[in-house]
Amino acid sequence: MSKATKDQRVLPAPLVKIFSYVDEHEKKFIETLSQAVSIKSVSADPDLRNDVVKMMQWAQVKLIELGATTELCDIGSQVLSGKTVPLPPVLLGSLGNNPKKNTICLYGHLDVQPADISDGWDSEPFILTERNSKLYGRGSTDDKGPVLGWLHAIEAYQKTGTDLPVNLKFVFEGMEESGSIGLDQLLIKKKETFFNDVDYVCISDSYWLGTEKPCLTYGLRGMCCFGIEIEGSSKDLHSGMYGGTVYEAMSDLIFILNQLVDLKGNILIPGINEDIEPLSDKEKELYDKIQFDVDAYINEISASQPLQETKQQLLMNNWRYPSLSIHGIEGAFSGPGFKTVIPRKVIGKFSIRLVPNQDPLKISKLVKDYIKSIWEKRQSPNKLEIITEGDGGNPWMTDPFNPHYLAAHKATESVYNIEPDYTRGGGSIPVTLTLQEVTGKNVLLLPMGSGDDGAHSQNEKIEVRNYIEGTKLMAAYLYEVSKIKISSP
Amino acid sequence: MSKATKDQRVLPAPLVKIFSYVDEHEKKFIETLSQAVSIKSVSADPDLRNDVVKMMQWAQVKLIELGATTELCDIGSQVLSGKTVPLPPVLLGSLGNNPKKNTICLYGHLDVQPADISDGWDSEPFILTERNSKLYGRGSTDDKGPVLGWLHAIEAYQKTGTDLPVNLKFVFEGMEESGSIGLDQLLIKKKETFFNDVDYVCISDSYWLGTEKPCLTYGLRGMCCFGIEIEGSSKDLHSGMYGGTVYEAMSDLIFILNQLVDLKGNILIPGINEDIEPLSDKEKELYDKIQFDVDAYINEISASQPLQETKQQLLMNNWRYPSLSIHGIEGAFSGPGFKTVIPRKVIGKFSIRLVPNQDPLKISKLVKDYIKSIWEKRQSPNKLEIITEGDGGNPWMTDPFNPHYLAAHKATESVYNIEPDYTRGGGSIPVTLTLQEVTGKNVLLLPMGSGDDGAHSQNEKIEVRNYIEGTKLMAAYLYEVSKIKISSP
Repeated sequence: MSKATKDQRVLPAPLVKIFSYVDEHEKKFIETLSQAVSIKSVSADPDLRNDVVKMMQWAQVKLIELGATTELCDIGSQVLSGKTVPLPPVLLGSLGNNPKKNTICLYGHLDVQPADISDGWDSEPFILTERNSKLYGRGSTDDKGPVLGWLHAIEAYQKTGTDLPVNLKFVFEGMEESGSIGLDQLLIKKKETFFNDVDYVCISDSYWLGTEKPCLTYGLRGMCCFGIEIEGSSKDLHSGMYGGTVYEAMSDLIFILNQLVDLKGNILIPGINEDIEPLSDKEKELYDKIQFDVDAYINEISASQPLQETKQQLLMNNWRYPSLSIHGIEGAFSGPGFKTVIPRKVIGKFSIRLVPNQDPLKISKLVKDYIKSIWEKRQSPNKLEIITEGDGGNPWMTDPFNPHYLAAHKATESVYNIEPDYTRGGGSIPVTLTLQEVTGKNVLLLPMGSGDDGAHSQNEKIEVRNYIEGTKLMAAYLYEVSKIKISSP
Repeated sequence: MSKATKDQRVLPAPLVKIFSYVDEHEKKFIETLSQAVSIKSVSADPDLRNDVVKMMQWAQVKLIELGATTELCDIGSQVLSGKTVPLPPVLLGSLGNNPKKNTICLYGHLDVQPADISDGWDSEPFILTERNSKLYGRGSTDDKGPVLGWLHAIEAYQKTGTDLPVNLKFVFEGMEESGSIGLDQLLIKKKETFFNDVDYVCISDSYWLGTEKPCLTYGLRGMCCFGIEIEGSSKDLHSGMYGGTVYEAMSDLIFILNQLVDLKGNILIPGINEDIEPLSDKEKELYDKIQFDVDAYINEISASQPLQETKQQLLMNNWRYPSLSIHGIEGAFSGPGFKTVIPRKVIGKFSIRLVPNQDPLKISKLVKDYIKSIWEKRQSPNKLEIITEGDGGNPWMTDPFNPHYLAAHKATESVYNIEPDYTRGGGSIPVTLTLQEVTGKNVLLLPMGSGDDGAHSQNEKIEVRNYIEGTKLMAAYLYEVSKIKISSP
C-alpha cells in the first residue's frame, strides 16, 4: 500500500497461521496457476473445446483433493462456427454440510479469452511468465487466479489444522467468456436442491477500481442492445452507377444515430431518466471517500479529457447513471482504404447501460418509440427495422451496509490494514443476478485483481502481491462470514 | 431490337462481306471467348498473378497471328497481401503504319474480378457456359468479350480479303480491376513514341444503359474520396467500464457525417455546386430522347422508389450532377451480433462524384473547410483528421457531336438500324482521361455489353447477340472512322 497507515491489525489466531501458510506457499501457488494457465481453455474456439473440458476436469481433481464432492454437469451443446460442439460441463462442488455453519456459494470461471503472441503479447500467453513481480498469462487474473485463490485459501485452513468455519458450494463454469451459454438453465434447475441451503454468494471475477486500494463492489449496470436496420435495396450498389438516383440507407441510419446522444453523453430519448434511483446522502458519501485518480484514468487510455470534471461525477456517470454508446455499423464498408459502395442494408448497433430502477423492457419500448418517431419525420421510403438482443439485462445493486459486506469489510482490513472502497461497476456480470435469484441471498463481489490487469487484453497479468494477498483476503472473508448470525427461517 | 423499325440500311459492300463472316463464325468466336474465360486472370489475387501473365501472353499470340507487332511492357511490381509480386505486363501492339490511313488506338483489359461458384454462381465462373443464348462466365462482358470483339473484327477484314482501312494501336492491360497500377506511368512514357501518331482512341469497357438499345458514351464523372478520422483514446474501450466517462469518437463522427447530405441527396457543403456546367438545350434534348425505364431500373435493385420522378432528372442526377455517398466506417464494430465496444478511432468514408467543371482540388478544399467548421462547433476534445485519397479524379466529357462520334453513330445504325442513345456514366474510367491526355485526341466509349450483364457480380454474362453484333459494330466503326478526313498538322 503506498498510503498504508500504521498497522493496527490484531489478527485472530487462526488467520495468523493461515496467512503465514499462504506466504510460505507463494511459489507453490504460482506453480499451480502456471499449470492452469497452460491449459488453453478458450471457450470461443471450437477447436479448443476439449481444452476447456480438460480445464474443468483439472479443477474437479483439485476440488476432490480438498475433500469436496463434485459433479460435472452436462449442459448440452451449441453451434459454433457452423459446428455443433458440446458445451463444457459446469463443475458443481460441495464441501462440508454442518448445519451449524453458514453456507457460502463461490462462483468463478475457468475459460478464457482468445490469445496469441502475435496479438502483441511480450511472452507466450499460455505460459505464465513472471516479470517484475507480475505474472503474465491469459486467465491469470480473469479468472483462473481468483478461482485458485479460493482453493488455496481452503488448503491453508486444512493444512494448518484450522477447522473450515463455513460450508462451501462451488459453481465453476467454462463458458463465461462466451456468454455463459447453458449456465442459467442449470442454476435455475438446481434452485431447490444444490442452492437450497446457501446463505451467501461470493463472486471474485472483477477488479479493483485502481491499482492501490481494495474494494467491495455492490452494484452493476444492466444493458439493452439495439440494432437499427435500414434497407434501401436488394444489393450493394456502385456509387458511380447509382449515386444520385437512390435513397441511401447509410444517410438514413446516420440521421437516426445522430439523435441518440449528445456531445456530453446525455441520452436524447425522452423519459429515459425517469426511473433512475435518486442519489441519497449516504450513497453520495461513499463516492466522496473513494480513492480514484481521474487524471490517471484518462491518461491510461490517452484520452484528451474526461467527460466530467470531478471524481464523483465521473464515477456516478459510469455506475449510477445510464450511458449510451454507438458501437458500429454492420453491412457498411469497414475495411481500410476506399470502396465506393452504397451499402444495401446497414445495421447501426448501440447499447444503453441501465441502472437501478430502470426496467430493460420499459427502456426498450421508449427507445423503439423514439426511433420510430424520428423515422416518421425523416420521410424516407427505405425500410426500418429495430432489432433488440434478448430482453436486455437488469441492473444489479445491493445494500453495501449489510452484514455480508461488513464481514468482507473486516476481512479486507485484516489483510490490507485499510478500509475498502465501495464501488460499483459500469458493466454487467449477468451471473450475479442469476445467483441472487436462485439463492434468494445476498451476493458480494470481492475482487482480487488490480484495475490495470488487462483482462481480455494483451499481456493480461496478475501481480504476485494481489494473488497472494487476495488469497489471504478470501481466507479472511470465510472466517468473517462464518461469524454472521443467521436466524433460521 | 424490340422496337426495330423497318430495315433501311444500305450497307457498304465491304461491311456486307464482313458481317456475313462474323455471323458464320459465331461458334468459333464463342470458342475463343471460352478459352479466354478459362484463364483465371484475377488481378486482385497474388496467387493467380501467373494466370494474368499467361492471359497477356495468350493475347499477344492472338495479336501476332493478326500480323501485329507487339511488346509486353514490364511495369514493375507491387506489394499485395504482404508479398511483392511483379505486375502483369501491359501488351502494346501496332498493326499497319500507312500514313494515308487514320490511326486508331484501342484499349481493353484482360484481367477480371475474383469469382467462385460458392459466391452464388449457377455455373463455374471460369467455364464459359451458354444458357438461353447467354454466355455466362467471369470476364465474358468485362472485358474479355469486347477485347476479342476487336480481334475478331480485324480477322473478319483480313479473312474476307478486305483492306483494313485504319492503322491500329492496341493497349491491353492486366490490372484494370485492381486500379490499373503502373499503367499511367507507362502511357505517359510512351506519349512521344507509341502514341505519337494516334488520331482517335476507342474504349470498349462499358455497357448499354438498358438492355435493348446501343449507346455511345460521352461523359464520365470524376471522384474525390474522403476519410473523417476521429480519435478518442489509445485503445478500444469496454462500454460498461467507460461508458459515461469519455467523449466517444463514434458520436462525434456521426455528428459530422449527418451534415454532409440530406434525404434528397442534396450535398450540404457550401459552394459545392458553383462550378457545375449549366444545362444547354441541346444537351437537354439528348436526355429527352434516351430510352430508359425508371421503373425497371428501380425494380432491378428492389428499391422502394427512385430519388427523382422523371427519367431526365434521374439520369441527370447520376451523370451531370455531383452525388455524395457515405460508404462506411473503419475501426468501429462491423460484425454480426453485438460487441459493446467504444471504438478508439473511427474513420468515416465518403466520396463525391464530380462533374464538369468541378475541380477535385477545389472541391477537396471546400469539403475540408466545411468539416473543420462543423468540428469547431462540436467542441469535442477528440482529435480530428481529414484524409483524402490522392488528388481525386477529374470528370471527363467530350462533345458528342464531333466527327468521331458521328462515325460511331453511323456504325451503330449500320448494325442495329437504330440511332444510338447518347449516354454518360455516373462512375469513372480513369484510363479515358489518361489516353485523352497522352494522345491529345478524342476518346470514344463504345459499349458492347448490355446494362444487365452483371460485370463484377455473380453470373456475369454476355449475350451471344451482343457479342456477335458488337463485333460487327467494331468492324463498322473501323470502317466509318477511316473515312474521317483529318487535316495534317
